[in-house]
This record gives sequence, C-alpha cells and structure tokens, in this order.
Amino acid sequence: MQLERFDTPGIAHISYLLANAGEAAVVDPRRDIDAYLQRAHALGVTLKYVIVTHRQEDFVVGVRELARSTGARTVCGRGDQLTRIDVAVPDGGEIGVGGLRLRALHTPGHTPGSTCWAVFDGDGSDAAWGVLTGDSLFPGATGRTDLSDPSRTGENAALLWDALHAKILPLGDQALVLPAHGPGSVCGTGMADRPLTTIGLERLTNPVFLCSREEFVRQKEAERIPRPPYFDRVAALNAEGGIAARPPHAVPVLQPHSLHGSFDGTLVIDTRTPAAFAGGHIPRSLSIWLSGLGVFGGWVAGPDNDVVLVLERPSDVEEARLSLGRIGVDKVRGVLAGGFEAWRDAGLPIEHGGTVTPEQLNAHLREYRVLDVRDDTEVQSGVIPGAQHVYVGHLPDRLGDLRRQLGSDTRIAVTCSVGHRSGLAVSLLLRAGFRRVHNLLGGMTAWQKQDLPTERP
Amino acid sequence: MQLERFDTPGIAHISYLLANAGEAAVVDPRRDIDAYLQRAHALGVTLKYVIVTHRQEDFVVGVRELARSTGARTVCGRGDQLTRIDVAVPDGGEIGVGGLRLRALHTPGHTPGSTCWAVFDGDGSDAAWGVLTGDSLFPGATGRTDLSDPSRTGENAALLWDALHAKILPLGDQALVLPAHGPGSVCGTGMADRPLTTIGLERLTNPVFLCSREEFVRQKEAERIPRPPYFDRVAALNAEGGIAARPPHAVPVLQPHSLHGSFDGTLVIDTRTPAAFAGGHIPRSLSIWLSGLGVFGGWVAGPDNDVVLVLERPSDVEEARLSLGRIGVDKVRGVLAGGFEAWRDAGLPIEHGGTVTPEQLNAHLREYRVLDVRDDTEVQSGVIPGAQHVYVGHLPDRLGDLRRQLGSDTRIAVTCSVGHRSGLAVSLLLRAGFRRVHNLLGGMTAWQKQDLPTERP
Amino acid sequence: MQLERFDTPGIAHISYLLANAGEAAVVDPRRDIDAYLQRAHALGVTLKYVIVTHRQEDFVVGVRELARSTGARTVCGRGDQLTRIDVAVPDGGEIGVGGLRLRALHTPGHTPGSTCWAVFDGDGSDAAWGVLTGDSLFPGATGRTDLSDPSRTGENAALLWDALHAKILPLGDQALVLPAHGPGSVCGTGMADRPLTTIGLERLTNPVFLCSREEFVRQKEAERIPRPPYFDRVAALNAEGGIAARPPHAVPVLQPHSLHGSFDGTLVIDTRTPAAFAGGHIPRSLSIWLSGLGVFGGWVAGPDNDVVLVLERPSDVEEARLSLGRIGVDKVRGVLAGGFEAWRDAGLPIEHGGTVTPEQLNAHLREYRVLDVRDDTEVQSGVIPGAQHVYVGHLPDRLGDLRRQLGSDTRIAVTCSVGHRSGLAVSLLLRAGFRRVHNLLGGMTAWQKQDLPTERP
Amino acid sequence: MQLERFDTPGIAHISYLLANAGEAAVVDPRRDIDAYLQRAHALGVTLKYVIVTHRQEDFVVGVRELARSTGARTVCGRGDQLTRIDVAVPDGGEIGVGGLRLRALHTPGHTPGSTCWAVFDGDGSDAAWGVLTGDSLFPGATGRTDLSDPSRTGENAALLWDALHAKILPLGDQALVLPAHGPGSVCGTGMADRPLTTIGLERLTNPVFLCSREEFVRQKEAERIPRPPYFDRVAALNAEGGIAARPPHAVPVLQPHSLHGSFDGTLVIDTRTPAAFAGGHIPRSLSIWLSGLGVFGGWVAGPDNDVVLVLERPSDVEEARLSLGRIGVDKVRGVLAGGFEAWRDAGLPIEHGGTVTPEQLNAHLREYRVLDVRDDTEVQSGVIPGAQHVYVGHLPDRLGDLRRQLGSDTRIAVTCSVGHRSGLAVSLLLRAGFRRVHNLLGGMTAWQKQDLPTERP
Repeated sequence: MQLERFDTPGIAHISYLLANAGEAAVVDPRRDIDAYLQRAHALGVTLKYVIVTHRQEDFVVGVRELARSTGARTVCGRGDQLTRIDVAVPDGGEIGVGGLRLRALHTPGHTPGSTCWAVFDGDGSDAAWGVLTGDSLFPGATGRTDLSDPSRTGENAALLWDALHAKILPLGDQALVLPAHGPGSVCGTGMADRPLTTIGLERLTNPVFLCSREEFVRQKEAERIPRPPYFDRVAALNAEGGIAARPPHAVPVLQPHSLHGSFDGTLVIDTRTPAAFAGGHIPRSLSIWLSGLGVFGGWVAGPDNDVVLVLERPSDVEEARLSLGRIGVDKVRGVLAGGFEAWRDAGLPIEHGGTVTPEQLNAHLREYRVLDVRDDTEVQSGVIPGAQHVYVGHLPDRLGDLRRQLGSDTRIAVTCSVGHRSGLAVSLLLRAGFRRVHNLLGGMTAWQKQDLPTERP
Repeated sequence: MQLERFDTPGIAHISYLLANAGEAAVVDPRRDIDAYLQRAHALGVTLKYVIVTHRQEDFVVGVRELARSTGARTVCGRGDQLTRIDVAVPDGGEIGVGGLRLRALHTPGHTPGSTCWAVFDGDGSDAAWGVLTGDSLFPGATGRTDLSDPSRTGENAALLWDALHAKILPLGDQALVLPAHGPGSVCGTGMADRPLTTIGLERLTNPVFLCSREEFVRQKEAERIPRPPYFDRVAALNAEGGIAARPPHAVPVLQPHSLHGSFDGTLVIDTRTPAAFAGGHIPRSLSIWLSGLGVFGGWVAGPDNDVVLVLERPSDVEEARLSLGRIGVDKVRGVLAGGFEAWRDAGLPIEHGGTVTPEQLNAHLREYRVLDVRDDTEVQSGVIPGAQHVYVGHLPDRLGDLRRQLGSDTRIAVTCSVGHRSGLAVSLLLRAGFRRVHNLLGGMTAWQKQDLPTERP
Repeated sequence: MQLERFDTPGIAHISYLLANAGEAAVVDPRRDIDAYLQRAHALGVTLKYVIVTHRQEDFVVGVRELARSTGARTVCGRGDQLTRIDVAVPDGGEIGVGGLRLRALHTPGHTPGSTCWAVFDGDGSDAAWGVLTGDSLFPGATGRTDLSDPSRTGENAALLWDALHAKILPLGDQALVLPAHGPGSVCGTGMADRPLTTIGLERLTNPVFLCSREEFVRQKEAERIPRPPYFDRVAALNAEGGIAARPPHAVPVLQPHSLHGSFDGTLVIDTRTPAAFAGGHIPRSLSIWLSGLGVFGGWVAGPDNDVVLVLERPSDVEEARLSLGRIGVDKVRGVLAGGFEAWRDAGLPIEHGGTVTPEQLNAHLREYRVLDVRDDTEVQSGVIPGAQHVYVGHLPDRLGDLRRQLGSDTRIAVTCSVGHRSGLAVSLLLRAGFRRVHNLLGGMTAWQKQDLPTERP
Repeated sequence: MQLERFDTPGIAHISYLLANAGEAAVVDPRRDIDAYLQRAHALGVTLKYVIVTHRQEDFVVGVRELARSTGARTVCGRGDQLTRIDVAVPDGGEIGVGGLRLRALHTPGHTPGSTCWAVFDGDGSDAAWGVLTGDSLFPGATGRTDLSDPSRTGENAALLWDALHAKILPLGDQALVLPAHGPGSVCGTGMADRPLTTIGLERLTNPVFLCSREEFVRQKEAERIPRPPYFDRVAALNAEGGIAARPPHAVPVLQPHSLHGSFDGTLVIDTRTPAAFAGGHIPRSLSIWLSGLGVFGGWVAGPDNDVVLVLERPSDVEEARLSLGRIGVDKVRGVLAGGFEAWRDAGLPIEHGGTVTPEQLNAHLREYRVLDVRDDTEVQSGVIPGAQHVYVGHLPDRLGDLRRQLGSDTRIAVTCSVGHRSGLAVSLLLRAGFRRVHNLLGGMTAWQKQDLPTERP
C-alpha cells in the first residue's frame, strides 16, 4: 500500500493519493492537479477513483479535471447534491482499489453529505487500517457545523456527534485518521498540531469524544469562525466538480510605468511581509502576505476583479496565482516586474506605513484609537484597553462608518495576533484615506509577552 | 541587454529571449512555451514581440499561444505565407525592443520567406551586435535548400548564397551569429560544434563564404538529407502560428495486464537504450531511444496513431510526450506503469533481440544478410561488404519487399553508425515477422575502429 | 509537533526528524546528513539530540558528524557499547524535545542494546503518541535476531518477544509505530508494506503478537537471511558514531580510453538494468542495478577496492556514490564518461550477455545447467527441476568449485526472482571465464506465472 | 567544443568550463566548486586544467580544491607570484585541451601577472575563436589599475593599454571576449551590459580602444573605486590557490530566545530588503540585502567575527553563507530560526527604522542633516543641497567623528542611489546610538526623477 499526502499551503488543506497493486484513488484533489499526476507516474499507479469526502467550500477542487485527464471515475457519498459524479456510494457501501476496500461512512454535520471512508487492507485482520475523515474529524477538533445554515449549527453538531460516535469510534483505536485539513484551516478551529493521529489518540483527547452530546452541541454553538464571502461561490463550483486550473506562468509581466499608467479599476495586492510593506509600498495597494492569499485574498477580491501582484520574488508568482485561483480569483492581469524595488527605482510615488512598538503605544495610548482586527474567538483572550473590534474581513464594509466616526486624521493603531492581518487592515485604511495609521509591531503576542495591560472586550 | 538561450534536446533547436530595459522578444518559440514565460518572470521583462525567422517544418511552434498568453504581437518577414501574424516587416524594416533595434534581412533559400534579424544595441556604434539567422546560417553550414521544392535545390542555394553575401556578411566580423539550430538538426548538415560564433568566424570557415556561388550550388545540390514525413504536416500547423501544448503529466498510467489486453491498434514505443531493448522487450514494440523520439518518432507515428510509451524511468514521461508533441504526435494513450521491468515482473511475454559483435559478424559474414540503415550521405564512407542499404526511415515501406526477397528466416545483421537507428530497424523487422535479426554492437563506428573490411556502397 | 521522514532508497532505511516548539531530534541518521540539516533550516528548528536506537550494521551512520556540525548531543540506550555518545539513557529514562517527552524502552534481541523511544506529546492525555522502534518492531515483522551471535538466535528472539510484550504492547493501540526499516531491508524479513502503522494494527497482524513465545522463537530460528560481509565492518564504524560523508560530485570523470588502459586492479560496476547489461557491456564489468548497489555492492566490493562506475545517466553518480559510501565503500576512482554508450562509440571491446526466455529454457532444459541464486528462504517456494542453489552473495567464493564442476563451456541458465541478482551472477560467471551464461528473462516470477514445472529444492 | 558559463551573483563574477573531445578546463573557479564538478559529470568531460587568469582579490578561489578533487593540474601565467601552481606558462606559450589550443597572452596592468588566454579550435582557420580576458578586458571597460599600488595607477594603465593593443586587438574582430566579470563588480567600473561581446565590438566601443594611450591613462587615474578591506586578505588566500568551501547547510539554527540571550560579541546581519528592515528589525542588527552580502559583508565583517544571519527565507541560508564564505567570512555561528517574524512572534524587542519620502525630505530639508553614502564617482552627478558625503564602507570608521559632530539626536536622512547602501548606513548609525535616522525612500534615483534640487558635491 502507498499513501502520499499533499499539503496545500495557506489553506492548510490535505489531499491524499492512496494506492495498492497498481491502482490508486485521489481524495479531495485541489484545482491544480499536476502534483497528483506526477506522483501517479512516479509510483506507476493507474488512477481508478477520484473521491470526494464532501462539497468543499474553502477551495476549488479539481475533481472533474483529474478524472477527465486520467480516465478515473469520480466517487462521493450521498447528500451533498454533487452533480457530474460517476458513482454515489450509499452509507456502508464499498469500493475497491487494488485489493484495498474503502467503505463509505455517512457522517453529516459539517455538510449534509459528508462521508468518511474507512480503509481496509485485508492484511490478515478485519480491523480498519485507517479512515479518511474529510472535514468531519480533525486532530483534536471537528469541522464547523454552521456552514449549511448558521441557525442550525447545534442540530448539525448533534448529527456530527452521533455519526462520529456511531460509525467512526467503532473502527478501533488502531485506525489512522487522515483528515482533509490541519491547523490554520477556516473549516474548523482548535485543531491540534499532531502530524499524524489515530482513532485512539482522538478518543483520548478530542472534545467530540470527551464531551457529552449536549456539551459538544453547546461548544459548537459557541464557535465563532468567520465565513469568507467566497464560500458560496466556491461551493457552487465544486458542486459541479470544480474547474480546471490555468496553465502555469501565464501571467503577463507589467513594467512599473505601465502599471502606474493603468491603475484605475485594478486591485494591487502586495504579497511581501507586513514589515516590508510598512517600510515602503505602492500607494493604494493592499497588503496580503503570500501564505495568507488563499484566505484573505478572497475577502478583498472576487472573480471579477482585475488583480495585479507585487511579489517579494519573481518565483512567487506561481504560489500567488494558485492561491488566488484556488478560491476562484482568476483575473490576475499581471505581476509587477521587479516588484516594489523596481517601482521604487523607477522613481514612482511611494507611501510608507507607520509602525508603532508596544512600548510606544502603551506610553501614548490616549493619543491613539486602537483597532483590533482579530476574529470573535481571539478577542476573548483580552484586548488593549479601549480597543474597538472589527474583524479584518469585515473592515471593507465598515470603512464608511469608521470614517464618519473618526475622520481621516485620527491616529489609529491596528493590531491582530502578530501583525499580518493588521497589515491588511492598515492598507485598507490607507486606501480609504485615513492618513495616520500604524501597525502594532508584534501585535497582541508582543503586547502580552511584555505584560502590558489588557481588558475584556 | 539580456540574452537567454533555450536548447531543445533531440531536435537540436535553439530559441532565444532577447531583452532590454524591461521589454523582450522571443524568437522561434517551440510549442511548449512555459520556459519562456518562466524566464520572462525571472528577468522581469514584458514580452513585446514573438519573432518568426521562417516557417519551421521540423517542430510545431508556440508562436500564437505565446502571444495569446502574454499579449505580445507576432512578427515575421515576408514570403512564407504565414497567417495570423500581427506584423510582417519588409526587408530592411525595423522593430524596437527596449532600445534595441532589430532589422529584418530577407534571406530566402531555406524557405522563400526566411528572414534574419540583425540586432543593434545603440551603444555608441553603428555596428550590429549580432544577428538571429534562423535556418539560413549555422556555425559552419547553411540550411538545406531542398525543402520547398527538391527540383529547385540549386536555385534556392543560389538565392541563399546571394542573400548571405549581400546582407549578412556586411554586418561585420564582430557580429554574433545566433542560429535556430545546432549540430544534429534535420534542417541542415555539416554544422560545426562551436557553442558560439560570429560573422567573422563564419567568414573564415563556413563553406558559403569560402566557396564560389557555383561551387556552393553544386554542394547543396549534392546534399542528401532525409525528409521526414511530418515536415508538411508540421509546416501547415506552423503557417497558422502552431498549436498550444497539452498540460504536463496528463498521460494515463497503464498497468502491464491492461496494456497486454488492449494491444491491437496501439503503437508501443520503447524509449530505453538499444542495449536495454536488445536485452529484453515487449513483443511488437518499436525501439526509439529517448532523445531520438523528436525525429524518428515522426517516421513511424502520425497524429492518428494511439501511442503507448515504455520508458526507462517514470520521469522521462514529460520529455517523451513533449518530443512527440513537438512533431504533432499527440495521441499518447498511456505510459506503461513501471516500464519494461514491471511487464517482466508480471510474467508477461518477453522477446529478446539478437546482438552480434563486429568480430562475430566478420567471422561469419557469409551467414548474414547485412542491412545498413544509415542515410545516403553516411554510406558514402563505406559499408560492410555485401550490405544492402535502406534508410531507416524508409524501412517501413520496404518491409514487404524485404520479406519477399529474404523470407523471414534469413539471419539479418542491421547496422547504422553506433546502434540507435539500427535498434529501431531491428524492432521494425521483428514486428514484421523476421525471426533472426541482430543489431551490430557499436555499428559502423566499432567496425571501422577495428579495421574490419568495408566496400564502396 | 513536526515529523519528517527520510527514506533511503536501496536499503529501505527510514530515519526521522521529530520537532516541537523549535527543538528537534534526529533518529538514526545516515552518513550523508545534508537532508537533515536542510529540513532543520526549512522548519526553523534547532537540533538538540541525535538519537541512536541501536548499533546499525547495514549502513554507516552520520551520528557524530550531525552532532558535530550542529552542536546537538548524541543519545542512545544502554548495551550496544557505543563510544563517543554524550548521553546514555537507562531503561525508562526520558529526554525532552521542545515539550515532547521521549522515553527509552530497552528492547534487546536484534542487538543487545536496542532501545525503542516512546513519544509523549503531553496533549491532554498520558497515552503515547507514538514509538520509534528502530529494528525491533517493523510493520508485520521484527528485526532479525541472529546478528550478534547466530548460535543464540532463539535466545535473542525470546528476549525480543518478552520486551515487545512487556514494554511496547502496553503503550496502547493508539500509538503510531515508527520503525527504522521497511520492506526490502536486510535487517528483517516478511515486512508488510503498510506505509503507516500503529501498535493496534501490529497487535492484530504481527507474528510477534499473534504467536506464543515458543512459536515465535521457532519462527525466528527458522529465518535464513543472508549476512552481508560488510556488516561487521559497518558496525565497528557505527560503534564510534559513523564517519562523515565525502563532498558531492567529487568523483573524477574517466574517458573510455583511459579506463581501457588502466583496467587492472579496478572493479568496474555497471549500474544499468540487467536487460541493458545483457544487451551489451564492458568485458569483466559486474552488473549491479542502481538501487541494489547499497546492498549487493557490499558483497563484491570492500573499502580497499578501486571502483569505477558505469552509469545509465550521469546524474546517477550521486546516488551510486552515496549507496556505496553508506556501506563504507569509498574508493570510487571514477565514473565512465558517457557510460556504456561512450565506450561503445569509442569502438572498444564489448561483450553481450546471453538471455533466455522461460519457454526456451523449458523446451531445452536438458541442455542447460540451472543456477538459482535466490536466498535460502526464497528457494523454499520451489526451483526449476535440477537447479543448483548458490546464493548470489556466496557465488564469488564458489566460482572455483563451479569451474571444476562444470568447466567453462557448460551452458548455464541463471535465475533469481525477476532477474536482478541473476544479472549480477551472470556477470560474476562471465568474469570468471564461463563462456555460455544466460539470464532467465523474468526469473522465477515469469517461470511460475507461465505454470512451468518446479520441484522442491 | 562546449562552453559553460557560471555566474556568481552579488560579485558579478563569471567563470567558465571549456571542453572539447572529453577534456575540459575550468577558468577562475570560485571557492564553492560543486557546480563545476556537476557540469563536468553531466557533460562527461575530464577536468585536465584549472586555469587562473590572475590573482583575484574580490573572492576566494577554489583552484587548489578543484584540482585536488579531480586530479586536474593548475595553470597560470607568470608574474602574480602564485604558489602551489603546477604549470606557469610563459607569454605566448600554449596548453592543449582536447584539441583546442589555449595561448597565454601576458596583459599586466590589473595585476602584474594578468594573463589572457586566446582559444584556437583548429577548425580550418588560424583565427582565434575567443579569448578569456580575466579582469583585463570587460565589455565596454577594463579592469581597475590601482590595486597593486594606488600610486602607480597610471603606469599600470599604460601597461594595460599597451598589452591590449599589442596582443588582444590583433586576435581579430571575430574573436569572442570571455571576461571574468560583468557590470556590478568591484574590479572595474563602467562596464556595458552586453551579455556577449567580441573583439570587434570592443574595438568599436571600448574606451581602451577608442582613446589614445594618454587619454586612457588619464581616465584610469581619475577612477575612484572603493577598495574593500578584504582585498588583501583574499588575495593572500588566493596566492595559495584558495581554500575549500565548507559543507552546505552546516549552520546551526538558533531560536529567538537563544540569540537574545547571547547577543554580545555577535554581529547580526539582516539580509532582508531595506524596506523590510525599516518596517521592523532586531535592535543592533545590520542591514545588508542578500545580493549585497558578497561585497558589503566584507566591509563590516572579517574572518574573526561571529556572525548570525536573519534571513527573509530559510532557503536563503546557502546563498548567504556562500556569499560571506567567498570573501573569507566563515564564522557564521547560526541563522535565526523563522527570521525576523519568529523574533517578533516571540515578543522580543523590536526597533523600526525611520523612512522619509523625497517630498517629505524636500519639504523639511532644514530639519535634517543629509548623509550621502554613495562612492566618490557617483556623487559627481550631484547631491542633495547641504549633504555630507561619507562612503558607506568608510562609515564605521567615521561614526565617532559623526557623533561628536552631530550628537545622537540630530535628525539624519541617509541616501544612496536607490536605498540599499543607505539601509546599511542607517543600521550602522542606529547601532552607534543615533536615534533619529531616516532612509530616503528611492534614494537619489527617486529624488532626481522628481526633479528635486541638487548641488555639486
């Protein structure tokens, strides 16, 4: 048996190629499928099935394209209303991959059709070797249950508790757990960072197995995870099996003067670090660090936005383009030749963001309005006294209010956990005309490590 | 100024990216354009022009696709009846690339519209920095002049002599010569292996500059270079700007039993070395070593053939597929999982080719019928006594004759220069039912190094 | 927590980098340590410990070199008389790696000091996350117990059974098993090809947990695994922490005529496939396929042999050199420029090995003497009628006997499972002067798939 | 013939591997020799000679190590007092490389022993194919002549003019020029950015061929190129053939708290962009952008300094370490795990540099003291009114003076051409206790593009 794991940076997604005796299945492939094809060639395995654990909403899948280019059949459980799927396996049904048996276990809750796939290798034992858990069971956590209908979060949580107890736990402590996400995903919260886990380890540590049904439902109802605006659009694409990726490197290179002359209607995204952005950037550009593009890019850009990228290094273009493409943002009009440094060397206008250290902010706190852009859960741990809370993703919709409330000359300090999301927030504020915006260096992490005062939000 | 050179293995093709001050031109791009896009990104240059020196016939170009994906304009000289070209520059006309001037110099002979492009960098001198010579001028040689009409080879040679003397030589000894091919190409013969050359070096060593017009015409009329069957098809594609490449790795992996069960109508091409093929191979497969695929693949396969590849290593799939794709052979149905070794390990039928050493063949020469599959020019240097000459590319059309002439039980020794083309010939003969076929180890090279007897053909 | 796995091809060795909160430990590093250093940099972790599970005998370790170049401390259990180790942890003792606890569990049997390391991550449970089992416990198998003293194989097996039952099984079904080898290693036999496993999966399928103590001892006493001659030498090096690897690519390139002129005293190893070797090779060269070099290279070469490599591709030089270096064969005098093809093109003498298909051999069995070079265990499944059994590794010592017994003109067919080891055997026989040696194409696998007759050995 | 070119980033150095018929020579190898060995293997060529054009002073060579690991012989001209060289060829003498002839042409001036090597390929003409010009002749420029003795710059210039006219020009317009440096090197100034050049192109554009001897001497005497402090040390190492490189990746990874606790006596070099450094950095660290490390690292660090690196990306460690190693700075004690972001996330103290835009500076020019850190030549084009000029390399020695002159509270704006060297200067000033230091965003390039006022220095 061969198991290959494919990690997708930025969205903490994990997909798998599982093979035996020359046959293979790929589970939950992302849109850019070349890595799967390459491994199949390297291992000499024929792709028989492309398996979908559930209708993903946080990235565009490559289910149909992978099947089309290899002749594999697409497989899912039932209940997610996926179209163009070749085989829908009922609860308890099985498919075979080169002598392995994969059994569908319907575990609704994250989505109505979420299905785990238990893997039996037939090596002298009836026990499951492992189970592909999609977004139902993660290391130390479970998938969010608010997606299909936020008003039914609790009901979905109860469904999930029931299914995991009734169908997954009985697979036995020995079984490996192979989830579709790790820590950092927007599909769940509270994941443990165990690189590998088993049913037994989850039984001993995962809240879903440690809590009563009622307590679990309460916990899930209390979860507050932001819901990015691209979820519905992506889910709709995935219901049809996703879309093919665009060929690599097919993004024009724009010279600085050319970008400068065609700025209107263009969304310029600068993927350098927040520190580099603060040190100097193109006016009106937005700051989204490279590995954040696959989530936060979707809060500020949609499929109809013309995007131009400002990269730290030219070789970042593929990761940037793929990250946007995975959330359906395909109109990347160009990448700035030579990045910010070429713009600077061309003598074009530069803006520099303000930064402020924790000591400085604390010493002059009354001169600042503090904006905390972390999510609802994070701010529970305490905020800087007097801070106003607006989640970074909701900031674009709140800019008008803030302008009316503060005017454009108020000195604003923006913070998040360490400074990435606040970097984006700073750039949104600068673009909206706020003139005195400062990123708190090191964010709440540095603030708290230095024992500076906080208050309950 | 930046010059990037792209070598295409197998067809000895060279294309270029020439850039200055943020603008770039690509000259004679091949069908798989990713390398050009990647370099343009790395250098931070915007592709302004895709330049065509002439209508290529030995590989499918990516002119239109490269222009489409970057917004560049396509440029050619006049006379090759290329369609879908944005700019046709008259003889002596110029285009600009970031301060460089590229001047079109019409040099008909290889094709009616062949155009060289002299490059002037404007750095304090009127002298040309270099000249992109396409297939008109190579190091130590010139392009073949028999392509457009074999009956007018001499007339075309005269045209070429005139143009090179009148337009290229005057550029001056100092100018660099940047040709579209190097030694090994089917577009010319007799090339020197200078990795870099100049007009001055060519003036001193190239026959076109050392010979009189009459002598040069005589030499070109005496050239006998095989004309592969795909030339017309490829030229027709290129007249329209070529076609886009298929995405990488999109070739299904076939398991040995699956291939075994679906052999009919499939052309199985084994790209291992001739020695490996002789040591054991799949019955009815053809032997074409990997780097020979881009030429000899086109003698045995066309766009309608279903091809299955048997590779030395899985990672060879891209080179194999690209090599076939560059001559318009796109229907690669699959690649054999695990190559010949997996077929062998599956216990499926194996054939092993005979080999014979020069000593053995010489000692028993009367027991063998010798077949020399080199081209017309090569056999001038002498053949094994009694050898019959059939160029390897023409062998498929001659198999019926040979069968009638020799029967299938004659002991045949096949030779070429070192053993690659004879390996293909051996596999063609085996597939046609000849039972006792032997590849001469080391070919005529070994034969002659061991001072064994030869005769005039 | 981060777990990185490093697979070493050819010897089926697995080493690990385990990290948490910025600290890391590497377990059982091989001699060429660059991969560990590279990953430590990529992950941003400081190497705190280099852990040794036991005194390895099948490859030279890089324990001391890795510690030297990073400042890490070396750690082992007790009983293997390793010198130059910084910390020897007693049974049940613990070390810490960034919040992880690693507990030493003495499991003698494979070697006297074999120690497993249970890993506890402190995430809300007292249960072990996993256990590094070295050569004590493999998927579906256990380490061989004949190494320290073949006469005490049974006693060592009993020790191992006791330790695994008493110390490893109680860790719980949920714990991941991280062994030092997978299928293909010479340190055990009968391993399952599960890419991941757990205590629970082993409890349900591994003979050591399914059998009684007595039955297990009987099984281990019946195991017949060849003991390569380099084991003692390598173990002695490893007792001192191993030796540093030589810098990459530092092998001179030899031209064909230069090798031809300096053949005496040189061991020429041809790493192409057996099929390629059969199709043509350099006289007196030995055939060892690339991935077999790390084991079979050690049966024919020692630290004092001047080795020259004939490679399929120039880029194979690093894998070849490392494979030999890992078993302490460092005197690689050169690599043949251009491989066999350059030798052939230079017109130098070539030999071609005979091959024979199963049908041919079966039809003319009486004309052949069959030599079966598989190991003692493999031949139990049946041999070709009349076959003589000599393990390939023992063949060099038996060549004189065979010559006296058979003379050099007997027609010999050599077989193994599929044809790799028989290829080495053929080359040994050819070098020893046997003139009519044939490799059975597809070996016993093909023979048996075609239902040809066998007999008990 | 094969020519491979090796570009070394940062120091604009070019070395070559020249091969023919299986033999090769490497010219002016850098200390890290693996690339040469790798190419020799890929091409299948045996290294016969390691050629030295002159005693380099700007990077440590790998002459002796390359010879040692391949068996090649080392070759130089006469006059540079190199020791441990196998062959010293007199002016006009020749060596052979696989049928190529390389003729030594003594061209003193840059160093007393500088020797060019004309290459003749014997292909039907007596004309030189090319000439390896070392630091004697560059595209559009010549090597500096002030190195051996600044008081004899003019005399050396005259020697160089004589030699280039007498020995190089007669090689003919057709000959390729293969120099040891391109634009950006500290070994010359005013180089053209022609990627390839010829004697003819140089004859038409290079000052040494356009000017009279007297005018050329005047020009060279007027050149003011900084002389880094490592030149003498490096030249002394190179006189012995250089030293071997350290193995890759052998730099410990330091955790933020560990670096914080052991800061004293350590030189922390931050290789991120100046913008990133300005946005936030570790107090007392110095800012040297990655590609500047191979020159400016040598102005602030010597062989005895313990260096710790703060990198933009972990994969930069090799380039950083090699860049320092090439100027003999080997004591890299560690690299900060996770770079600046990990330091920030650990809540450790952060400093942020001031930046100032050209508009801001111009509007408040009287509040700033402007420091221009460009070199003597660059400031001739005009400085910001009132600016004080101190070359960045000389700043460490001037800090005491500046402190006395300005005090630590003066508002200082630092500028160079675009902002890299001024970034280093800012970090030097901050470390020296100046509290209000600002980097001019875009430097003099932006200042002049915006038509802001300048004055003669």
